[in-house]
Amino acid sequence: MGDTMGEKLERVFMSMIKMENVYINGIGRTKFGALNRTLPELAYDAMYNAIKDSDLSINDIGAIVVANFLGGPGQGQLHINSLIASLLPGINIPIFRVETACASGGIAVQQGALLLENYENVLVLGVEKLNDSSTLKITKNLAMAGDDLADQKEGVIFPAQYAMIASQYIKKYGASREDLSLVSLKNHKTALKNPLAHFYHKNVELEMINKSPDVCSPFNLFDCSPISDGAAALVLSKKYRSKRDIKILASESATDTISLSHRKDITSFKAAKIAAKKAYEKANVLPEDIDIAQVHDCFTIAEILALEDLGFCEEGKAISAYRENSFPLNGKLHINTDGGLIGDGHPVGATGVAQIYEVVEQLRGEADKRQVKDAKIGLTHNIGGAGGTCVVHILGEK
Amino acid sequence: MGDTMGEKLERVFMSMIKMENVYINGIGRTKFGALNRTLPELAYDAMYNAIKDSDLSINDIGAIVVANFLGGPGQGQLHINSLIASLLPGINIPIFRVETACASGGIAVQQGALLLENYENVLVLGVEKLNDSSTLKITKNLAMAGDDLADQKEGVIFPAQYAMIASQYIKKYGASREDLSLVSLKNHKTALKNPLAHFYHKNVELEMINKSPDVCSPFNLFDCSPISDGAAALVLSKKYRSKRDIKILASESATDTISLSHRKDITSFKAAKIAAKKAYEKANVLPEDIDIAQVHDCFTIAEILALEDLGFCEEGKAISAYRENSFPLNGKLHINTDGGLIGDGHPVGATGVAQIYEVVEQLRGEADKRQVKDAKIGLTHNIGGAGGTCVVHILGEK
Repeated sequence: MGDTMGEKLERVFMSMIKMENVYINGIGRTKFGALNRTLPELAYDAMYNAIKDSDLSINDIGAIVVANFLGGPGQGQLHINSLIASLLPGINIPIFRVETACASGGIAVQQGALLLENYENVLVLGVEKLNDSSTLKITKNLAMAGDDLADQKEGVIFPAQYAMIASQYIKKYGASREDLSLVSLKNHKTALKNPLAHFYHKNVELEMINKSPDVCSPFNLFDCSPISDGAAALVLSKKYRSKRDIKILASESATDTISLSHRKDITSFKAAKIAAKKAYEKANVLPEDIDIAQVHDCFTIAEILALEDLGFCEEGKAISAYRENSFPLNGKLHINTDGGLIGDGHPVGATGVAQIYEVVEQLRGEADKRQVKDAKIGLTHNIGGAGGTCVVHILGEK
Repeated sequence: MGDTMGEKLERVFMSMIKMENVYINGIGRTKFGALNRTLPELAYDAMYNAIKDSDLSINDIGAIVVANFLGGPGQGQLHINSLIASLLPGINIPIFRVETACASGGIAVQQGALLLENYENVLVLGVEKLNDSSTLKITKNLAMAGDDLADQKEGVIFPAQYAMIASQYIKKYGASREDLSLVSLKNHKTALKNPLAHFYHKNVELEMINKSPDVCSPFNLFDCSPISDGAAALVLSKKYRSKRDIKILASESATDTISLSHRKDITSFKAAKIAAKKAYEKANVLPEDIDIAQVHDCFTIAEILALEDLGFCEEGKAISAYRENSFPLNGKLHINTDGGLIGDGHPVGATGVAQIYEVVEQLRGEADKRQVKDAKIGLTHNIGGAGGTCVVHILGEK
């Protein structure tokens, strides 16, 4: 990897996370969208579906990790681990809540895998209810993933943060606003094959994207992932139980400064590069071995950066893959087979868990119309804020 | 334990958390109180003090767990794991944020100990900044640890929840409002010996307590822990490095319904009983072996329940220990040697970490005027909400 990463990584902890026997035995999720459901309802449905899909019962679960981002500012509901206990009366097992902005879901999966050192089976749940406030309030709440002093107080909300990244990228590598539209088009077209996606029914054409309203230059509406509600859950087990089980080969995360203003370069995410480097080493695979990747396209530019940070394209070159419509990449690699955050939706706490859900469906060969033929190794890339947190998972068959 | 617990526990997971080699090598904290410091300043100070106290440098730390409760609704600052990364430029290590209401700190210690399965050394940080909003807003924010539907929307804030518990306890066991004052008196007197305590300088007498303003019957002002800012940090290591190291013998947690209205009995906390039962078994000690215990006295009644749930007193009998001023309990057991939440303060995310800090000081023999002679085994008991989460740690020498 080293050289192709295009950057000498200053400092990487080579003590990687043990992932000796971590199997995903059950998966469940809800539809994503602006839903007329409460947070506890969404949480219950995803857990129910994951348990039903598994070989286990709720009584086999030793601990639960729940990811949620905006329960406090949004629903006025913190202590969500205990709320989940209320949905499972008499269980009384340890339940943990993690929050790392939009990477909350991926980090919950990592924590769940770590808990398998101590419990036979662990349930991981990601849940988010956003559509019960005004858009202004939601936008303000989402900005809490950014630095209060350097960014929030200056009005630099997330579309603005990623727009700065996009502007820099366009200037540095000679791209255009229309190039970004191609990312959105690909993901919207893919979402038409995903019945659980936020935009399953929304057929989007390039002209619609290019003519959609301005959000923050160079972004317009279709450059942004939507404000979604939803939940996703996984049953993790240290025992291989069925041929449908998928193994987690690596789970690695890294952090960076919360504000872009404190970084030298904003056209790539150092946390993503470090997490990916560790994950490839741990899983003993190379970027070219990956068949499918669910990457964090909160905005179109973020998918472009992801392809480069993950080593799928050289720096500044990902954009040409979109222009030439050369997907699958290198004739092999499928990106965001569920439609990504732009097409499938972005219920924040659930997003990183849903990425794993999609990889499991694909590797099991159960992804129906979205099925990628012979998918053997999958990767997920989940970002918090503007690259302040990144968690990368690599999954494969036993 | 079984019989003396006074309740047949319906369902306990006997798969306890491995704590084979978990040592606390460094501790640090700030003063607690209404402080003119920001959240990042408090966080930095506690981490700095913990590293300085340890045999390690920040470069030896493989991962960080940060506990914070109200950063979102309070400071509009979520994604605090990345904020911490900003304080440690170029480190880029995995940083996790956990939130489990007032048990956030204890759960962070547990998560930190779990991470030692994968990292040589882990830093645990608890931080909270409460005193930058109106009291009304803080009270509303603190209520987010309770069920939105069943309690918050009905105006049942936490003083009211614990007041219901106190009323039931008083009725069931024949106690009085004046009995509660004795808890407050003990903890305030103890805080006079703790220079870092919120109420270090505040000499409180029984008459003051009894005549203080009503909050919510039967509570008056001195039944409540204060609204504090502060931070505390620990350096955990899987290697025994110095004679000052203290070993974590057990770390166990349990959950219960978030709302009291969904429980059969509110004069004891089932989650506390389960966590304690598991911790005693794991550490292979009995309640009578404990020399010091830091228990979660968010309100006076909570300390009384703690003594019973932890098996130090029979149910309904703890109150007589206060009437007879029979502390140390049974001639041996010292309770809340730092002044507890009532005297030391309650900066929520930091509280559970600070409980461990005090036990380490005591077991090292470095607790100065507060020092308990020959303290060998210490326990901490950290509660989220009205018993929806409980985490119990048992610590000892190597």
